[in-house]
Amino acid sequence: MPPVDQARLADAKLDALICRLAEHVVLLAGYYPQIGQTFCVFPADGEPVLVMPRFEQEFADRGFVADRRLFDTWQNRYPAPAESIGKLLRQVVDEKGLRAKAVGYEGRFETIAPNQLSGEPTGAGALSLDLIREAVGGDRLVDATDLLYQLRARKTPTELARLAIANEVAAIGLRAFKEHAVAGNTEAGVSAAVESAIRRDGCGYLGARFAFGWGQVTSGPATSENWGYPTSSARKLERGDLVVIELGVVVDGYWADVTRTVTVGSANDRQREVYDLVQRAQAASLAAARPGASGEGVDAVGRQIIADGGYGNAFVHHTGHGIGFRYHEPIPFVAPGSSHTLEEGHVHSIEPGIYVPGFGGCRLEDNCAVLAQGGRFLAEADIPLD
Amino acid sequence: MPPVDQARLADAKLDALICRLAEHVVLLAGYYPQIGQTFCVFPADGEPVLVMPRFEQEFADRGFVADRRLFDTWQNRYPAPAESIGKLLRQVVDEKGLRAKAVGYEGRFETIAPNQLSGEPTGAGALSLDLIREAVGGDRLVDATDLLYQLRARKTPTELARLAIANEVAAIGLRAFKEHAVAGNTEAGVSAAVESAIRRDGCGYLGARFAFGWGQVTSGPATSENWGYPTSSARKLERGDLVVIELGVVVDGYWADVTRTVTVGSANDRQREVYDLVQRAQAASLAAARPGASGEGVDAVGRQIIADGGYGNAFVHHTGHGIGFRYHEPIPFVAPGSSHTLEEGHVHSIEPGIYVPGFGGCRLEDNCAVLAQGGRFLAEADIPLD
Repeated sequence: MPPVDQARLADAKLDALICRLAEHVVLLAGYYPQIGQTFCVFPADGEPVLVMPRFEQEFADRGFVADRRLFDTWQNRYPAPAESIGKLLRQVVDEKGLRAKAVGYEGRFETIAPNQLSGEPTGAGALSLDLIREAVGGDRLVDATDLLYQLRARKTPTELARLAIANEVAAIGLRAFKEHAVAGNTEAGVSAAVESAIRRDGCGYLGARFAFGWGQVTSGPATSENWGYPTSSARKLERGDLVVIELGVVVDGYWADVTRTVTVGSANDRQREVYDLVQRAQAASLAAARPGASGEGVDAVGRQIIADGGYGNAFVHHTGHGIGFRYHEPIPFVAPGSSHTLEEGHVHSIEPGIYVPGFGGCRLEDNCAVLAQGGRFLAEADIPLD
Repeated sequence: MPPVDQARLADAKLDALICRLAEHVVLLAGYYPQIGQTFCVFPADGEPVLVMPRFEQEFADRGFVADRRLFDTWQNRYPAPAESIGKLLRQVVDEKGLRAKAVGYEGRFETIAPNQLSGEPTGAGALSLDLIREAVGGDRLVDATDLLYQLRARKTPTELARLAIANEVAAIGLRAFKEHAVAGNTEAGVSAAVESAIRRDGCGYLGARFAFGWGQVTSGPATSENWGYPTSSARKLERGDLVVIELGVVVDGYWADVTRTVTVGSANDRQREVYDLVQRAQAASLAAARPGASGEGVDAVGRQIIADGGYGNAFVHHTGHGIGFRYHEPIPFVAPGSSHTLEEGHVHSIEPGIYVPGFGGCRLEDNCAVLAQGGRFLAEADIPLD
């Protein structure tokens, strides 16, 4: 059963969605594309159809869509066989009665989830739109960007279970982080150990087929800039350092985004004070997360604890963002000024941080599922500061 | 000095290029974006300008463009600060006299190189085009996709040196592959070891700042499908297996694409026969690669050796594709039916393979720089079959 309620399309006056981004093939078909050339035709009425490479069927078998139209690729042909895809799309459009109907497409997605072969991701741009336009005809194509972000915001129980696996695999990485964040190792060396553990031990774990992680590690004074999305360097960790990992993990198309902070050797008093504030802020925001709570309110309770501790100006970013089909999603946004209200099935990060130039930075991040009974982290990984 | 001859823009009747894909920021500015929100304004006359996140200056310092207009991001703002970028772009357009002029943009790129944070790559789509359209005004924006692919095809000596580093780092991965492709290890475990070696040892190697690899490993009978871009599985390697790695590597925005085949334990006669054919085919194509040679001809000499050995139907893909600013580039295409002629500065893979259902697959791939004196592989990695 597809996770998306087809009635939502009718509400939006759409007869179908046609998507090709990996994140929407996961959303609509529960299948994580390898090379990113798969299209999903998802009608408001009737069964969805995949137009996909023949050799990816192993992955489609993990999803929800039985009707697959296969094309061959990479055999003496470069770039992708747009003609084959176009022909199959036209057939499906005809069968489903979608010619000249109102069809939604991925109009404004630029920051995207990579496909499995993430060294060469595939976006949805002018080429895809031309294929869809030619297949559907007429002049009723609709940019469905906002609808798609709404559809993906509320996760089904199946999706929550898959996201929990991604978070469990992320915990494998966090334990490797703790083990390898020692004096003499480099930031890049710690990243390598984390990513390697996820790749090696994630494949097969809890039924996972494909697991991959990206861990960015900063250490020492540079941790004060860790909120800016750093790149691990060749700097060697030194006793007394704060070390922060920002870790994104994908398991079969479902994402986790977690952060931990440790010290090399014993923490000093100020490190412990800052860590405790961040930990208490995270716990307070988690306790506040429930259906009906405001994104602004969940942020505020944690932010207040940090302000009361004397670090009000040092928490320079949001408390949380949506997550699920990509590393970052816009719904819900948990931050000052957010207009979002949490709904059952939302998943968002809770990631308070304190950043002080000259001292360093500290952030803790886990992924919270908003359930009827309240917010719950999708996995536990107890990584002590020191 | 930018690597792109500005006169080429005038020849194409363009007053400027405005690009935001990571691969074109590398091409035009020699700088590999972290988060993929950088724009490069590259005029036909005068100095280029970067519009970029403040915290990425460390990476821009490795490139060619001194004029940088900085914006802040990720501080309680999501998504990206399009307003700041738009304002800066308008300023630059005004300063350079580009308002309502003929400006080329990235019209039809869907398969892209990821930015450094490749867990969340950024493409160039409707949002970027809107920013460019608003900044430039007028109605003379031009899809410069074909021009961009042409500009990137001929590499400068500086670019060849950087690509050689990427190939040297890839060789680190290939040696790890040989070491870890042993009985009992899983395909995913071999990938993890390769990717980890690249991440850990590549950072700092030959001056590299950022190195990352993606290694896909197949083993046993599945190697006969390795040409289809596989995903490493939890299968354990067994004595007698063929094991193939398809490895993409990026170092500071410059790419290598290499493949090796080994056996677990001693090779049998047929494995050795197939391997020798592939090796001879690769050497023959390398010897044929020189300025003025045809893509079809370089393919044909290797393909003939495989056909003469009795495996004509088993070499199911091209001999080579362009490479440099992305894992795969379209120029030059070295394959039957290619209309391309090799030029000095082209870089392309040479990757013959033999794939036999039930027996397995074997491919060898290195990256050939087309120099005045002939084709040269950008690095050597002698990985014996067994």
